Amino acid sequence: MTKKTLNVAMIGYQFMGRAHSNAWRQVGRFFDAPYDVSMKVVCGRNRHAVAAAAPALGWEQHATTWQEVVERDDIDIVDICTPGDSHRDIAVAAARAGKTILCEKPLANTVAEAVDMLDAVKAAGVVHMLCHNYRRAPAVALAKRIIDEGRLGKIHHYRGTYLQDWIVDPSFPRVWRLEKSKAGSGSLGDIGSHSMDLARYLVGEITEVSGLLETFVKERPLPDDETKTGVVDVDDAALALVRFDNGAIGTIEGTRFATGRKNYNRFEINGSKGSVVFNLERMNELQVYEEDGPDSGFRTVLATDATHPYVEAWWPPGHIIGYEHTFTHTVLDLLRAIDAGQSPAPNFEDGVTNQRVLAAIEQSSAERSWVSIP
Amino acid sequence: MTKKTLNVAMIGYQFMGRAHSNAWRQVGRFFDAPYDVSMKVVCGRNRHAVAAAAPALGWEQHATTWQEVVERDDIDIVDICTPGDSHRDIAVAAARAGKTILCEKPLANTVAEAVDMLDAVKAAGVVHMLCHNYRRAPAVALAKRIIDEGRLGKIHHYRGTYLQDWIVDPSFPRVWRLEKSKAGSGSLGDIGSHSMDLARYLVGEITEVSGLLETFVKERPLPDDETKTGVVDVDDAALALVRFDNGAIGTIEGTRFATGRKNYNRFEINGSKGSVVFNLERMNELQVYEEDGPDSGFRTVLATDATHPYVEAWWPPGHIIGYEHTFTHTVLDLLRAIDAGQSPAPNFEDGVTNQRVLAAIEQSSAERSWVSIP
Amino acid sequence: MTKKTLNVAMIGYQFMGRAHSNAWRQVGRFFDAPYDVSMKVVCGRNRHAVAAAAPALGWEQHATTWQEVVERDDIDIVDICTPGDSHRDIAVAAARAGKTILCEKPLANTVAEAVDMLDAVKAAGVVHMLCHNYRRAPAVALAKRIIDEGRLGKIHHYRGTYLQDWIVDPSFPRVWRLEKSKAGSGSLGDIGSHSMDLARYLVGEITEVSGLLETFVKERPLPDDETKTGVVDVDDAALALVRFDNGAIGTIEGTRFATGRKNYNRFEINGSKGSVVFNLERMNELQVYEEDGPDSGFRTVLATDATHPYVEAWWPPGHIIGYEHTFTHTVLDLLRAIDAGQSPAPNFEDGVTNQRVLAAIEQSSAERSWVSIP
Amino acid sequence: MTKKTLNVAMIGYQFMGRAHSNAWRQVGRFFDAPYDVSMKVVCGRNRHAVAAAAPALGWEQHATTWQEVVERDDIDIVDICTPGDSHRDIAVAAARAGKTILCEKPLANTVAEAVDMLDAVKAAGVVHMLCHNYRRAPAVALAKRIIDEGRLGKIHHYRGTYLQDWIVDPSFPRVWRLEKSKAGSGSLGDIGSHSMDLARYLVGEITEVSGLLETFVKERPLPDDETKTGVVDVDDAALALVRFDNGAIGTIEGTRFATGRKNYNRFEINGSKGSVVFNLERMNELQVYEEDGPDSGFRTVLATDATHPYVEAWWPPGHIIGYEHTFTHTVLDLLRAIDAGQSPAPNFEDGVTNQRVLAAIEQSSAERSWVSIP
Repeated sequence: MTKKTLNVAMIGYQFMGRAHSNAWRQVGRFFDAPYDVSMKVVCGRNRHAVAAAAPALGWEQHATTWQEVVERDDIDIVDICTPGDSHRDIAVAAARAGKTILCEKPLANTVAEAVDMLDAVKAAGVVHMLCHNYRRAPAVALAKRIIDEGRLGKIHHYRGTYLQDWIVDPSFPRVWRLEKSKAGSGSLGDIGSHSMDLARYLVGEITEVSGLLETFVKERPLPDDETKTGVVDVDDAALALVRFDNGAIGTIEGTRFATGRKNYNRFEINGSKGSVVFNLERMNELQVYEEDGPDSGFRTVLATDATHPYVEAWWPPGHIIGYEHTFTHTVLDLLRAIDAGQSPAPNFEDGVTNQRVLAAIEQSSAERSWVSIP
Repeated sequence: MTKKTLNVAMIGYQFMGRAHSNAWRQVGRFFDAPYDVSMKVVCGRNRHAVAAAAPALGWEQHATTWQEVVERDDIDIVDICTPGDSHRDIAVAAARAGKTILCEKPLANTVAEAVDMLDAVKAAGVVHMLCHNYRRAPAVALAKRIIDEGRLGKIHHYRGTYLQDWIVDPSFPRVWRLEKSKAGSGSLGDIGSHSMDLARYLVGEITEVSGLLETFVKERPLPDDETKTGVVDVDDAALALVRFDNGAIGTIEGTRFATGRKNYNRFEINGSKGSVVFNLERMNELQVYEEDGPDSGFRTVLATDATHPYVEAWWPPGHIIGYEHTFTHTVLDLLRAIDAGQSPAPNFEDGVTNQRVLAAIEQSSAERSWVSIP
Repeated sequence: MTKKTLNVAMIGYQFMGRAHSNAWRQVGRFFDAPYDVSMKVVCGRNRHAVAAAAPALGWEQHATTWQEVVERDDIDIVDICTPGDSHRDIAVAAARAGKTILCEKPLANTVAEAVDMLDAVKAAGVVHMLCHNYRRAPAVALAKRIIDEGRLGKIHHYRGTYLQDWIVDPSFPRVWRLEKSKAGSGSLGDIGSHSMDLARYLVGEITEVSGLLETFVKERPLPDDETKTGVVDVDDAALALVRFDNGAIGTIEGTRFATGRKNYNRFEINGSKGSVVFNLERMNELQVYEEDGPDSGFRTVLATDATHPYVEAWWPPGHIIGYEHTFTHTVLDLLRAIDAGQSPAPNFEDGVTNQRVLAAIEQSSAERSWVSIP
Repeated sequence: MTKKTLNVAMIGYQFMGRAHSNAWRQVGRFFDAPYDVSMKVVCGRNRHAVAAAAPALGWEQHATTWQEVVERDDIDIVDICTPGDSHRDIAVAAARAGKTILCEKPLANTVAEAVDMLDAVKAAGVVHMLCHNYRRAPAVALAKRIIDEGRLGKIHHYRGTYLQDWIVDPSFPRVWRLEKSKAGSGSLGDIGSHSMDLARYLVGEITEVSGLLETFVKERPLPDDETKTGVVDVDDAALALVRFDNGAIGTIEGTRFATGRKNYNRFEINGSKGSVVFNLERMNELQVYEEDGPDSGFRTVLATDATHPYVEAWWPPGHIIGYEHTFTHTVLDLLRAIDAGQSPAPNFEDGVTNQRVLAAIEQSSAERSWVSIP
C-alpha cells in the first residue's frame, strides 16, 4: 500500500534547521510513519548559503522569500526554524495559507505575538505543533508514563536546572542571542523555557512564580568589531520559584554561567511514592526511585528497551541514541497527529501558556514579588 | 609534656548528644589536640535515662538540673545538645558562669533569642561556637580551600538542596520536630539551615531572599494517641531564592518530602573559572571542575589524602570516614581556638546572622515578596 | 567542485545492515567526505524481504545473488554485513573483482578463513577495512589520542569487560548465534572480540593468553520448535588473562550472562601517569585520571567538544550522539583512506591477528595452559 | 545486670593496631555487646614507641615481649596485628596458653604456617577468628543476605578487583611490604586476598585457578639509603581466573599500579536473577539489580537503614559510616560468637583455605597452567 506524501518547507537552516532536516530525512527510515515525506524546499535570506544548504541537508529546492514559500500550493507543512523575532509573521502567513505548522520553541518573543499565532492557526483550522524536542527523549517520555501510571503518587516537588557555560568568559562576543530585540530573552527563553515546559508536561500547570533574572556581564565585545562593546540586555541567568495547580512546588533555573556544565538539563520530581531524575547529558538514562522495601534506591533505567517509548524502532538494549533523535520523534508524532486528526502536544496553546509563564517570571523579577499566571 | 585538661559538661543526650559524646571521646585518640578532655558530666531531665546514658556515652557523672551543672566550678566547657527552645536559657546561664560554650544549630528558635545569647557571651567574654558540623567534612573544607585560593574565580551561583523523606507518609506522627513551639520551624531550621550556613561559609553573606514555605500534610496523628491528630504548624519544605553581597545568586532548599533522598545535602557552586559539587551521602567526595583545556570535566576528588583537611589523622587514601567525624573535627577546632585565643567559626555571631536569614525567608514567604537581611 | 561518486553494494540487511545503511546515508550529510556515495544495491537471499529492505534503508536496487553483485562493473565498494560463515567467500570474490571491501567483524569464523581473505585482498591490491565500530566512538578515539600523546605514561593494565544478559533465561531459544557452525563462537567472537580489538588498538599487540570458556546452559529450545532442544556448542562466557608485547597485562571478558548489563563494553587502562575508563552505555563520556597534585581524581570528560574526534560535524557541546554514529565515522574513514591512498585501520591484517588471539583463547581454555600468539 | 569483662592484649600497634584499638574502644559505645572489654595491654618491640602508643590508643599497659603477654593469666583475648611473618609463632603460643585469638589477615605467609596455626587452635580448643574486615561493611553483609535469600538466583560470575596506586612511582622505596621474607607476597596477599576472601564469602569455594603475577618495577631504592637499590621479590600485580565449586567463574585482581585508584576494592556478582556491585571507595552503597519488569536497572542502595546489617547501632538513614567501623563490627561478632559458643567466620580454617588459594595462584603463575585447590 502506497502512503500519501506530505511536502515540507523549512524556513531557516542553521542549528535548528540542521536538526529538523535530519529528522525529516530519518523519520521514515526507522519508523512506519503514516505519511511519506518529501523535503521540498528550504528557505533562507542568504541566497548563496541556502543554495549550499539545500543539497547538504537533503532539500530538493531552495528559496529566499518565505512569503512565497508558505503560499506554494505544493507545500503541506511549514517548519519554522528561524530566530524568535520572525516566528509570528511566518506562522500567521502559513496559517492563512492553510498549512500545517511546526514551530521551534519559544513560540514567540512575547505573549502578544504568541497569541496572534494561536489566533491565526485556530481561525485557519490548521494543525499546529510547538517543537519542545526534549519531551520526546525516551527517558523523558518514560518519566511521563511512570507519572501517569501513578507510580510516583502525588507530586510534591519539581526541581529543574538547565545549566550551560558558553558565555562565562566576559570576552565572548555580544551575539544575537544576547540582544533582546532578536532573542526576546536570554537564558530564560532559550533554556529555562525547556525546563519550564518539562515541568508543565510532567507535573502540571504553573499558577504563580517568583523570578530572579541576572546579567553578570553587562557589556561585551561586538561580534563584528571587537574594539567596541555592546550592551547585553538579556538575562545571563534566570531562576524561579513556582507553584503548581496541583499543590506541587518547585524551582526552575536556566543559566549560561555554570562553568563545566555543557548541556545539563536536569530535573528531579518527588512524589509521595517515588521520584525520577533526568539529565540530558545522559539522555538515555532515567533515575527512578520507587519505595519497595528496605533495599530500595534510585535505579538507573537505561531507556533503551523495546518497551520504552520510541525505542523499538532503533537498536537493541543498551545501544544509545543521540540528541537529534528527539527531533525525529517530534516529526513522527506530528505525522501521527495529522493522520489521527488530533492536535499534537505541545501545540500553540502550550506555546502561549509557556510564554505567559516566562513573562510572569520576568515581571516578578522586575517587581520583586510573586506574579500569578493569568 | 602534660597537657592541661578541660572538663566538659554536655546538656542533652539524644541523637546530637550521642554524636557529640563520640567526638569528645575520639578527638584525642586521633588528633594531637592542645588540651586533654575530661567528659565530666552529662545532664538530662529523665533521671533514669540519663543515668543509663552516662556510662554508655562515656561521661563520668550524670545530672538532671542544667542550672546547677553550668555553674559548677569544675566545668570549663558547656556543650548544648538540647532542642532549640532551651538553647537561650542554657547558653545565657553558662555565659554568665564564664564557661566556654559549644551550641548545636540552630542557635535558637528566634532572632531575639539568638541575640540574647550573643549579647550574653560577649558580655561575659567567653569563647562561643556554633556547631554546624558539615563545614568540617574534609570535602567541604577542601571546597572552602579551593574557593579561597581563587581557583573557582568569581562566584556566580550557589545551588543548595538538603533533601530527606522521613515524613512523606501522612501517617507519620506529629513529633516534636513538627511543632513550632518546640522546633521553631520545620525543614527550614532543621536542614535548610545547613544548606544556608554552607552558602554563607563558601560563598558569602546573603543580602536578600524570596522564600516559599509549604506544609503538605497539615494534620498528623499524635505520637501518644494515634486516634487523635494534631496540627503541623511548621514547614514540610522551604525554598528560597537568594542574592549574595558579592553578586552571586542562588537557590536554597530543605525538604522532608523528597522520596528516596535520605540525607541529600548537596550543593553546587559555579564560579567564573570552575565549579564544585558536594553531596553528603557521598561525604568523602568532592566534584571539582577546573577549566584546563579541551579534556576538562568534573573530577571526583576522594578527599581522603593526607593533604586534605583533617585527613592526616585518620586513614590512608581511599579509606573513608563517617558522618560522626565531622563532630570530632568541630570539637578539635574548638580546642584549637581556645588555645590560640581566637574565636572559632561559626560562632554565635554567625548564629544570629543565620537566624536572621531564616527569619527573612519565613517573612518573605508570608509577604510574597523579597525581604532584605538587616 | 563536484566530487567523484563511489557506488556501494551491501551484502546482508539485518541488524548490521541497518546500521551500515544509516552510515552510508548520513556520512555526506554531516561530514565533508572526499567522495559522494551512491547506495546502489543491497543483496540478500530472501527476495521478498530484501525488496522491502531496499527502499526502507535507502538502496536504489536489490538483488539476491551476491556472486553477481560483487562482480558488477558499476560497484566500487562491497560492504559485507552477513553472518561470519559467509565472509570468506564474499570477500575473496569481491577482492578478485577488484572492489574495495568493508567487512563486519569478526573477519571470519576461523583463522584459516581470515588468512584466505587477507591473501585475496593483498593479491588483488584492493583497499580492505574491518569494521570494529567502537574504535570510532569519539570518547574511544579520545582515549587513543591521550595514550598516543603519552599522557598515561607507560601502560601497565588493561581491564576489558563486554557484558550483556540477553540469554540468561534458559528458555531463550537456540538461535543461530548459539551454533558454532554459523557463528564461529559465542560471546568470545561476538563481544569479547570487541574488547580484545580495543585492547590491541589502545594498548598494543597481545603475545599470550590464558583463556576460560564456559557454557552455562548447554541445551536450549529450538527456535522453530520449542518442544525440542538443541545443543549450544558455543561459549556463553569467555574470559582471558593476557600479556602484551609492551609489558602490560590485562583481563578480557565477554559474557551474555551478566544480568542487568545490556551493552556494558567497558575498559579501564592504567598507565604510570594516568588512567582512562570507558563504558559503551555512556558512550559520550571518557573517565580520565591524570596525576596533577593533591586534588586529582577521575574526571568525566564529555567527549562532545568540537576539539574531540569526529565531533565538530555534529552538535554543540553536551549534545550527545548515538550508537549508530560510530558506523558513520567508520565509513567516513574508509572514504578518507581511499582518497589518501592509505590502508584504513583496522584492516584485514588486524582481522587475521584478532582471529589468532581468539583462537588462542579457545585453545588455551581447552588445554588449560597459556598459549602464545603466533 | 553487669556483664562479664574480657581482657584484651594486642600485639602490634601500627596501622592495623590503630584500627583494632578503635574497634575495641568503640564496640561497647554503640553496640550492646555480650561482654565488656578491658583493653589491658598493647605489645611492641620498640619500648619508647609502644609506651607512647598505649595511652594514645587507649590501652592500660604496654609491653615489649609478646611471649610474656600471651601467657598472662589476666588476658582472655589475644589480637594479632603484626606483619605476617610473626603470626604463626604468636598464634601458636597464644593457643597453647588457651587464649581466644583474633588474627589480622593474611593468616600467615605460607600454607604451612597457616596449618600450624589451625592445628594449634584446634588442639587447644580455643576460639579463633581471622580478621577480614570488609565482610562486615554493611553493604557487603547486605550483599550476602541478598544472595542467601536467593534473590540473585544461581551465581554465574564473580568479578573482583582491588586496585591501588601507591607504588606506581619507581622511586618509591623498597619498604618491607615489598620483601617476600617479611610480607609473604605483594598485591596478592595484601589486597588480592581481600577480593578472594569476598569471593569465597559471597559465591563459594574456589576449586581451581589460573594466575598471573607481575613485578613491573624490579628494583627500588632502599628505605634507609636511597643511593642503593634492593630487589623487589613480590608481585606488583596479581591476576587470576577462577572456577568455583558451584559452577560460577570469575576473575580476581589485586594491583598497586592502578593510577588514580586509591582503595578500589570492587566486586560485581551476576546471578541468573540479579546482580550486585560493591566498591569500597563508596563503602556505604550497594548497587543491586533485580529483574522486575521493563523499568529495571541497577539501583543504588544506601546501606544506612536500620534494617541493614549493623546499621541500627549507628546513625539515621543517609548518615554514612567509615572504614574503621568494619573492625568494630568484627570484634562485635567475635564477642557474640564467644557468647554463643560458636566459631566466628572467617576463622583459621578459612585462613588455611585462603592461603591455599593464594599459593595456587602463585604456583599457577609460575607453571603457566591451571592449578586445583587441594
